[in-house]
Amino acid sequence: MLIIIKILGLIVGFIVDKVFVVSEELGMTVRKKDFGEWYLEVVKKAGLLDQRYPVKGFPVYMPWAVFMIKRITSMLEQGLEQSGHEPAAFPVVIPESSLRKEREHVKSFEKEVFWITHAGQNKLDERLFLRPTSETAIYPMYSLWIRTYQDLPLKLYQSCQVYRYETKMTKPLIRGREFFWIESHTVQRTNEDAKKQIEEDMKITEDVIEKKLGIPFILCERPPWDKFPGAEGTYAYDTIMPDGKTAQVATTHNLGTRFSKPFDIKFVDENEKKQYAYQTCFGPGVSRILSAVISVHGDDKGLVLPPELAPVQVVIIPISVKGHEKDVIKKSNELCAELSKCLRVKLDNRNYRPGFKFNEWELKGVPVRLEIGPDDVAKKQVTLVRRDTGKRIVVSDGEAKKEIDEIMKDIFDNMKARAKKFFDENLREAKNYKELKEKLKQGGLVKISFCYEEDCAQKLKDDTGAEIRGPVFKSNEKPGEKCAICGKPAKKVVYAARAY
Amino acid sequence: MLIIIKILGLIVGFIVDKVFVVSEELGMTVRKKDFGEWYLEVVKKAGLLDQRYPVKGFPVYMPWAVFMIKRITSMLEQGLEQSGHEPAAFPVVIPESSLRKEREHVKSFEKEVFWITHAGQNKLDERLFLRPTSETAIYPMYSLWIRTYQDLPLKLYQSCQVYRYETKMTKPLIRGREFFWIESHTVQRTNEDAKKQIEEDMKITEDVIEKKLGIPFILCERPPWDKFPGAEGTYAYDTIMPDGKTAQVATTHNLGTRFSKPFDIKFVDENEKKQYAYQTCFGPGVSRILSAVISVHGDDKGLVLPPELAPVQVVIIPISVKGHEKDVIKKSNELCAELSKCLRVKLDNRNYRPGFKFNEWELKGVPVRLEIGPDDVAKKQVTLVRRDTGKRIVVSDGEAKKEIDEIMKDIFDNMKARAKKFFDENLREAKNYKELKEKLKQGGLVKISFCYEEDCAQKLKDDTGAEIRGPVFKSNEKPGEKCAICGKPAKKVVYAARAY
Repeated sequence: MLIIIKILGLIVGFIVDKVFVVSEELGMTVRKKDFGEWYLEVVKKAGLLDQRYPVKGFPVYMPWAVFMIKRITSMLEQGLEQSGHEPAAFPVVIPESSLRKEREHVKSFEKEVFWITHAGQNKLDERLFLRPTSETAIYPMYSLWIRTYQDLPLKLYQSCQVYRYETKMTKPLIRGREFFWIESHTVQRTNEDAKKQIEEDMKITEDVIEKKLGIPFILCERPPWDKFPGAEGTYAYDTIMPDGKTAQVATTHNLGTRFSKPFDIKFVDENEKKQYAYQTCFGPGVSRILSAVISVHGDDKGLVLPPELAPVQVVIIPISVKGHEKDVIKKSNELCAELSKCLRVKLDNRNYRPGFKFNEWELKGVPVRLEIGPDDVAKKQVTLVRRDTGKRIVVSDGEAKKEIDEIMKDIFDNMKARAKKFFDENLREAKNYKELKEKLKQGGLVKISFCYEEDCAQKLKDDTGAEIRGPVFKSNEKPGEKCAICGKPAKKVVYAARAY
Repeated sequence: MLIIIKILGLIVGFIVDKVFVVSEELGMTVRKKDFGEWYLEVVKKAGLLDQRYPVKGFPVYMPWAVFMIKRITSMLEQGLEQSGHEPAAFPVVIPESSLRKEREHVKSFEKEVFWITHAGQNKLDERLFLRPTSETAIYPMYSLWIRTYQDLPLKLYQSCQVYRYETKMTKPLIRGREFFWIESHTVQRTNEDAKKQIEEDMKITEDVIEKKLGIPFILCERPPWDKFPGAEGTYAYDTIMPDGKTAQVATTHNLGTRFSKPFDIKFVDENEKKQYAYQTCFGPGVSRILSAVISVHGDDKGLVLPPELAPVQVVIIPISVKGHEKDVIKKSNELCAELSKCLRVKLDNRNYRPGFKFNEWELKGVPVRLEIGPDDVAKKQVTLVRRDTGKRIVVSDGEAKKEIDEIMKDIFDNMKARAKKFFDENLREAKNYKELKEKLKQGGLVKISFCYEEDCAQKLKDDTGAEIRGPVFKSNEKPGEKCAICGKPAKKVVYAARAY
């Protein structure tokens, strides 16, 4: 029986054998004091990314990160499929001529793509580039596939990595040359349908980012000078990082007919008339979302992971005392097998001090630690420790499963509330330029009345480094009389912020 | 209530809205008569791949294929994780200097990789290539990570696409320039441990390819002249396609210390001595496995999909008769909502003739068709039609779910038995060269006694196009006295076959 339990313990559920804590020193920088330093440390010490790969800006994504990237991807995919999107996979290489079809698009992207010029020993007739985003890969095919209104809406997505030759300083998961995202590309009959797609995308994002991962966000319409190259409108999801800078975690672009025209995506409507189709694309940044989870929920001990996301939800740590090893291990194995039926459980029976293991799994953000010592065996009980508060609870064996479920729910509620509180506290408002500059120093998103002119936004940027993130999607808030920056008549209420 | 059911019908389970049957003409080439033609047709007409992408050899993977690629990938990932492998993601770009570290490896691969020479407007200092396989991306990192015997075994995998500049004629899912696979890379303390890994890989492959997908295979050790470039030994999984040619669907390579030496992967053993580590890599070809599923199970009507793999397991087709539309649709929606709780169900209420829909879903290989007409509504029954045999069964509403489960089990048993019978019938044996050549014409794998010399294998290839696939893994079968090809003393019993 013991053997069976041992084998079960080995094969059930997730098994994370290598811990990949790169550094021996587990201590962390205080998060509030130096968020930037803390972030780099936690990414390294929790074994998320290794930046030592010999091509600059291309990190190695380690198991702990990949488990979560896969999980976030699959949460988003589920939302996309439930709203009628289907998966596809378009080539990673795109011919240069496809890029050159949309004027604004090429202007922006030709400077930031990787170019393939040779294959084997041959020079290629036409240069290829690695996708930085896939409009120019997908739309030539849409032009072949779409014939009549009955083919619409067409809603495809692909989960993939994209490649951008970033010349700014790269930052793990926030700005890299290879990162994970999903891109969905829809084709619609009317502009109204395209606009409805923005709301569907919002619901998908909200369900994952807010409801499952506890990341609060605001959806802004970017001003015209900050749109996606070629788009008619860009709608972006911003969260606030602990240092007060905002991070964009997803965007939807309303492309109107700006791509359907150069790519010749037409359909025959109900009246047998040929029309250009309306298009949208939606890109939740999986890497970016993970960076927000790390930053928003983390604390001075390291990661704090939402239970639904955590690669390991419960870590079991046997606390052996000489003469009792066998009992403790037996019980640990039994509990691991039992709990693994419905949770992601890891039994850590490596030959290290318990204190070392505690620190390590705290650093990696595992929601619940379950300790078993000889006393617990004797009393048929276990000790549960919450990652978010450090609170210890002793419960009877039989109650463990139920209690863990409740604790995990509670942990997530607490994380979500904490994150929301921080977010709300960092929504500010300013009446004039002096106030705006002060509030921007405090961090977060600052609401102002704004003239909606690019020059004025540029002045703000030059003076403070902050950007106009735009008006809130569908907001009807009336602006004050004057622009808070230049004093000319105000047109819209917008948020300003320093941004990643 | 009806509305709720309708909404449920829309959101539950998998929803496949676009059918992507590219051609209007659904009729298929007879599979036995011209397998090659049949294969290309089914790939196109069932909406698996579109080959019209403007870069040669780079197909677009369409939803029906991507659903299955994702499913096969996740089946294999589960097997890998249950045996202690963890996921990672290494960059798609590899510096040229890393390729040049292993002599045989570079010789083979430098001719078949895509080279990146520029980024944006800059020429790169060092050329990068797209991974054709990831040894040279991963092993420099292994060299950094591995310190002592306690770090071993290290078992990582990545699910990704790889890129090869194939100069031979490409064939969808069988030979392409971008294809899907998983590669796992392990590091072991001893050669014995490395050898055990081959058996673990075999179990993972068997569990998925044979037990879940019904594809019979044979595991052969490739002869030295057909090994993976740089490996000590290559163990390959071959299945037999309907035209009698074999297709390799996965391989494990025992790398010995041939990569750990140039890449400097060393560990300190229990006696504090530094040693080079032993390595293996395992590559189940997801695209190849899908091509085998298509080929081995398909029939003259198109795909026949294993129920566990099928993107849609049950398609519901309402058969409306004027005046009864409402009842039929209502019942179809109800059944769709009910069955979607535990099956992947599609309700096809497009405005087409039922016969057209039947053909289309048969072409796409959906295991069970559920028809509902006004009569069925009145009698509280439904008609189920099996994809594999075409047999119709009428069952009461309440029994539908249970009956479908049984039918699906039965379908898979039948598919598996059919495939196994074909495979076994195509294992032949030959005593001499004349017989070998005759048997090779009949197709499949032909067992012979063999001298195990490359020249002799080359003669066979020149004469017949067939290759020595090698001796069966761990087989102890004694060869006859003479090589069936050259007549010299035989050393091993091997299989010969024409191969994809």
